[in-house]
Amino acid sequence: MEKAFLPLLYLVWSDDLLSQKEVSILNTFFTENTILTDSEKKNLLSFIAVSNPPTRETLAFWKTEIFDELTQSPQIRSLFGLSLQLSGNDARFENLKPEFLELENQLGILGEEALLTFRSAANTQTSNLETLNSFDVKALQSILEGDTAGIEKQVRDLLQRPEFKYANTQETDSFREKVLDWCRILANEKLGSMAFPKEFGGGGNMKAYFAIMEALSYHDLSLVIKFGVQFGLWGMSVYFLGTEKHHIKYLSKIGTLELPGCFAMTETGHGSNVKGLETTATYDHKNQSFVINTPHPKAKKEYIGNAAVHGQMATVFAKLIIDGKDYGVNTFVVPLRDTSGNILDGIEIGDCGRKMGLNGVDNGTIRFHNVTIPKENMLDRFASVNNKGEFESPIPSDNRRFFTMLGTLVGGRIGIPKSALSAMKTGLTIAIKYSDNRRQFGPDGGSEVPILNYRIHQRRLFPHLANSYAFHFSLRYLTDRFMQRSEADAQEIEALAAGMKAYVTWNVRDSLQECREAMGGKGYLSENRIGDLKNDTEIYTTFEGDNTVLMQLVAKNRLAEFRKEFGKLDIGGMITYVFDSAKTALSEKNPYTSRRTDDEHLKDPEFHLAAFRYREKNLLSSAAMRIKKLVDGGMDAYDAFNVVQHHMIDVAKSYLERVILEQFLSKIETVSDASVRQQLVRQQQLFALNLLDKNKSWFLETGYFEPPKSKAIRKAINQLCWEIRTDAVALTNAFGIPDSLLGATVLTEK
Amino acid sequence: MEKAFLPLLYLVWSDDLLSQKEVSILNTFFTENTILTDSEKKNLLSFIAVSNPPTRETLAFWKTEIFDELTQSPQIRSLFGLSLQLSGNDARFENLKPEFLELENQLGILGEEALLTFRSAANTQTSNLETLNSFDVKALQSILEGDTAGIEKQVRDLLQRPEFKYANTQETDSFREKVLDWCRILANEKLGSMAFPKEFGGGGNMKAYFAIMEALSYHDLSLVIKFGVQFGLWGMSVYFLGTEKHHIKYLSKIGTLELPGCFAMTETGHGSNVKGLETTATYDHKNQSFVINTPHPKAKKEYIGNAAVHGQMATVFAKLIIDGKDYGVNTFVVPLRDTSGNILDGIEIGDCGRKMGLNGVDNGTIRFHNVTIPKENMLDRFASVNNKGEFESPIPSDNRRFFTMLGTLVGGRIGIPKSALSAMKTGLTIAIKYSDNRRQFGPDGGSEVPILNYRIHQRRLFPHLANSYAFHFSLRYLTDRFMQRSEADAQEIEALAAGMKAYVTWNVRDSLQECREAMGGKGYLSENRIGDLKNDTEIYTTFEGDNTVLMQLVAKNRLAEFRKEFGKLDIGGMITYVFDSAKTALSEKNPYTSRRTDDEHLKDPEFHLAAFRYREKNLLSSAAMRIKKLVDGGMDAYDAFNVVQHHMIDVAKSYLERVILEQFLSKIETVSDASVRQQLVRQQQLFALNLLDKNKSWFLETGYFEPPKSKAIRKAINQLCWEIRTDAVALTNAFGIPDSLLGATVLTEK
Repeated sequence: MEKAFLPLLYLVWSDDLLSQKEVSILNTFFTENTILTDSEKKNLLSFIAVSNPPTRETLAFWKTEIFDELTQSPQIRSLFGLSLQLSGNDARFENLKPEFLELENQLGILGEEALLTFRSAANTQTSNLETLNSFDVKALQSILEGDTAGIEKQVRDLLQRPEFKYANTQETDSFREKVLDWCRILANEKLGSMAFPKEFGGGGNMKAYFAIMEALSYHDLSLVIKFGVQFGLWGMSVYFLGTEKHHIKYLSKIGTLELPGCFAMTETGHGSNVKGLETTATYDHKNQSFVINTPHPKAKKEYIGNAAVHGQMATVFAKLIIDGKDYGVNTFVVPLRDTSGNILDGIEIGDCGRKMGLNGVDNGTIRFHNVTIPKENMLDRFASVNNKGEFESPIPSDNRRFFTMLGTLVGGRIGIPKSALSAMKTGLTIAIKYSDNRRQFGPDGGSEVPILNYRIHQRRLFPHLANSYAFHFSLRYLTDRFMQRSEADAQEIEALAAGMKAYVTWNVRDSLQECREAMGGKGYLSENRIGDLKNDTEIYTTFEGDNTVLMQLVAKNRLAEFRKEFGKLDIGGMITYVFDSAKTALSEKNPYTSRRTDDEHLKDPEFHLAAFRYREKNLLSSAAMRIKKLVDGGMDAYDAFNVVQHHMIDVAKSYLERVILEQFLSKIETVSDASVRQQLVRQQQLFALNLLDKNKSWFLETGYFEPPKSKAIRKAINQLCWEIRTDAVALTNAFGIPDSLLGATVLTEK
Repeated sequence: MEKAFLPLLYLVWSDDLLSQKEVSILNTFFTENTILTDSEKKNLLSFIAVSNPPTRETLAFWKTEIFDELTQSPQIRSLFGLSLQLSGNDARFENLKPEFLELENQLGILGEEALLTFRSAANTQTSNLETLNSFDVKALQSILEGDTAGIEKQVRDLLQRPEFKYANTQETDSFREKVLDWCRILANEKLGSMAFPKEFGGGGNMKAYFAIMEALSYHDLSLVIKFGVQFGLWGMSVYFLGTEKHHIKYLSKIGTLELPGCFAMTETGHGSNVKGLETTATYDHKNQSFVINTPHPKAKKEYIGNAAVHGQMATVFAKLIIDGKDYGVNTFVVPLRDTSGNILDGIEIGDCGRKMGLNGVDNGTIRFHNVTIPKENMLDRFASVNNKGEFESPIPSDNRRFFTMLGTLVGGRIGIPKSALSAMKTGLTIAIKYSDNRRQFGPDGGSEVPILNYRIHQRRLFPHLANSYAFHFSLRYLTDRFMQRSEADAQEIEALAAGMKAYVTWNVRDSLQECREAMGGKGYLSENRIGDLKNDTEIYTTFEGDNTVLMQLVAKNRLAEFRKEFGKLDIGGMITYVFDSAKTALSEKNPYTSRRTDDEHLKDPEFHLAAFRYREKNLLSSAAMRIKKLVDGGMDAYDAFNVVQHHMIDVAKSYLERVILEQFLSKIETVSDASVRQQLVRQQQLFALNLLDKNKSWFLETGYFEPPKSKAIRKAINQLCWEIRTDAVALTNAFGIPDSLLGATVLTEK
């Protein structure tokens, strides 16, 4: 009879969660019980004496007895059943069932679960997941690379050469020189000038240039930023803002890196609000020259790449002043150093010093003390000073001219998210491969389990993996749109680029954060690269336009488009807009669909698209309505836009998410290999469902989802993650990042 | 008549958002219009000829004309009204009103908003917010510091001495030595031994020790971690796991830093799952000694602070083996280096090298090659080997003994979130002060506006500010509970500490991320410290227990408590539990309350508490139900717990959020100064509403909120942020962080 209590006694003495309080519960139970004999009581009480606990050996003996019983009776499914068996099916014990179950409760023991302590459970579902190869990785890789596969391979091959071994990022000076050396190698391979016209030694291939940025970003990101400063910002500003005389004079030297230069726009006092720049370029009629000047310390150029050490010239953004009159911000080529690197008269250089990351880029400050440059140094594609010393421009508005100039440089806002995406892929590859190898915890009696088998670990990493696929295709789409842009869609593409830059870089930030944490201490060691990836991309959310500011711009652009399309707003028109113009949305927004929770529906791309579109339209029109109401109520429009800033971010996000989803789906349409297609479909489903889940409060608020639906979506995500687990490693292999570029020690050490 | 169109023409030519498409709309309008005369049409068409745009001067002239008209007629409130005025109230133009409004729509111009372009709007609400001093900052500071104000001041004063000037964190070797030097100064001031008993040279004051950790964390975080390794982990492990002989031999030398040491628990192969450690301590009967050995490379100790350079001894966690039998994990003092720093025979040290942060701490690996230590080096408070060479322990279960040992070291899990909170306060102080000074953008015609006046900026920073206040009081509460702990509540406090460690460090991570982005490029420069704060605290989410793992433990603890309280689960009992036992929740969960959106209700702490409690209970009981259903359905319990991992995180979070809210409210009850109290009430309201907003999808799903309520909460948060703006700087001043410790260049440079 006493044996019946062995499992309970064992649990009380061994469970690390139970406290000695339980001992006193047992004490009361044994003492007050009327079925047990005095001798049985005495024996049982002796086992729970705190002053004289069972020995370690006794505990081990109990466990063996219990284990043997369970092995002989595998059908046992409850603690009571086990105890009854141990009692030799004693009828007295059977009568004790209600009290025994009550005792279980008091002790907080869940009988079925507790059985696990005694049973070998090595063969759980969780233990059984492992990496498979269920599809053609190379086929998927070639879909990802598309028509730039050749140049990407060229870059990857180059980066695997010994001279591209990762550098010591701690020693700023040597790191900066190393990065410059790397850039020279790339220049020698004619990669830097890829987008320049062929007549100036370039490759005449802008699309290939973007592919180079993407592939380079599997390597150290200081390299890609230095490369981008030289060939993208410095080179492209001369190309797009200058005219033939500048192209002839500078472009081929920029492409060979004979002439390192800067893009000097941002000032200490004006970063986001670049229209307010204060550097001046004053026209000198007598000498037909400009005098470049920094009027006060806060007007100095800041964060300028190539400025601290290497730059010999700079495209300087400055307000043009003729005869005391301000003609708005224009651009000028200003020499900073001679060819030996000596700083020229009137130029004052500061060093931004150590940054969180990108320490291979020599960011600096530039202050101009009345520096004279010849008239021809004005980059005069959009404005010039004629021979009479008069201002001339085909674009009369200073404001519009400035934004037209910036518009030509939108390529930077495409290169940045592409670079960020590569960093994200690297991070995910490292973290997922590590998690596939790393084992920790496991069922009692079984081996430890790869941490990638844990649901929470899957939920942390896989939605980011799905995002990386989604972003990949939409950034390719953006690139193609950019390549084919015309005046008619230029502004749409500029807004899309600004939005994608912000949306992608924020998501990359989050994904690398998860990678770091998912790798625990290993993620914190520099040798595993997550830290560098995180810290280098940290500033991606700020440079080329602060993300928050960009998202406001994107939303304003959407509002302007919306007004053009739908005119004067009223509530009736709004409702018509939201419901009528989105027939699918309408069919979704009925009690039946808002409650549908079946798998087929939840995974249906038509459902995803309808929901994304409904959200986009609704957020946009409600933002327009809110602003109108505030302004109608007498609020200043500036204040009104401040009130809705938070809403505007959602307007922009919902627009971008719809575009990303559409592009993902339209890419999938083109994939013929069934197993590869299935992989992409799963990624698309996870991408869409994850966003529906993230935004579910909005869908619940609008009634588009009923609660059972949002719960079903959560469950579907967990299930998708579970299914993706076995293919996750292969899905990162399809990114095609060479091991030497991954460079994470933990993936190679034994 | 033509003048009436000047505003439209000006907008089309100057707005940076409008494209030349608009020109063609105007063209059609002018051409097809039947009211305009031929001569008027011709004039107007001449103004929109793309081949011959108006000159810059013409545009400026138009603007002046429009501006003058507006100045004379300030009552004008629409673009049409303005145009009519400009036409000289021409009756023909008045007849054009419908077509003109239609034209506005086609051009996407919102008339009222467009007026702003012409009107000077310097005096907006947004422009007018500025920092005020509306309450007694010192009074608030003294409430924050409470009864440890003295020791905190002592530490702050010490840290402002010149020898604590921040070091160069790039040069690892010198930085490590500098941090050791700093620790020596602290040891000399008897701060390190504050928690040790007085008979061993200590201060006998554990609470003061925690306050020291908190105040030290306003300085470089390598210092606080090195300090914590030496005095907390190494010292406290000897103190709590050893017995008198160890205390006598080691404690005073540890307290003076004569004996630097390590806490060697984690192994490469076993971090979270420490029960699975593989280092062995084999008892040698003949020599009455232990042989410490690392059986294979993955069993080496890793990430061990003080190991790479300075440690002379270590508390080593190893499996005790006697006569081939495994007695579970026990602890041993093992010498690593002699007093000159030479590594001893059999000890193999590795260096973890550069990490993302905390590079002033010399983390290393330790491998033992059959190192012999005398029997007395076993830390034998919970287990020992007797003279006959037999294992003895008052706790028979190896598992429970191990967790009891770890339980004594829970102080580390209190020190870490306190340290993280100080870093968060530093970051928020820097970012909020910067944002109060930094101006960017503004209304047309007005000055640029402090970025802290922008709603989105407030939404980014202020909820974190409210969190920092909330965390402050709940960490004080946790410390007090820890100081007064008894066997009865020890496990509750351990779970609370584990949970607070995870919850706070995750939030600190998020807050420092926002601080970095809110400061743009300035946040990226090392000189402004946000990068170091971010990278140093990055590992706080991993060490002293991986946050995700800890949260699972906390949730399991909650489940165990729940079962003890409510016994066998069934749906009826669950409903009773959730609804009956929470009377307030019941009264909330009715159509009237779930729809209440008035300010009084939304700011009512009773509402907050009821909602938090409802969520906690509901999540807990539903998790219990789900597990039971899965296990009842035949799933292995190990798998079942895997299925609900995501849910378990919410169980733990909701529990912690309820505790934090309760402690915040109970602290406010004690504050008598009305203006200070008002500040704290606002912070509490923002803390609570922000969490209700973050969790709103859950509240919507359960029907606890109706959609109008969740929308009203969002609005209330925006309004609270707006109200807090003028006090935000003062609220950071109340943290009392000396400027020299903030150390951000951007706050001091002119």
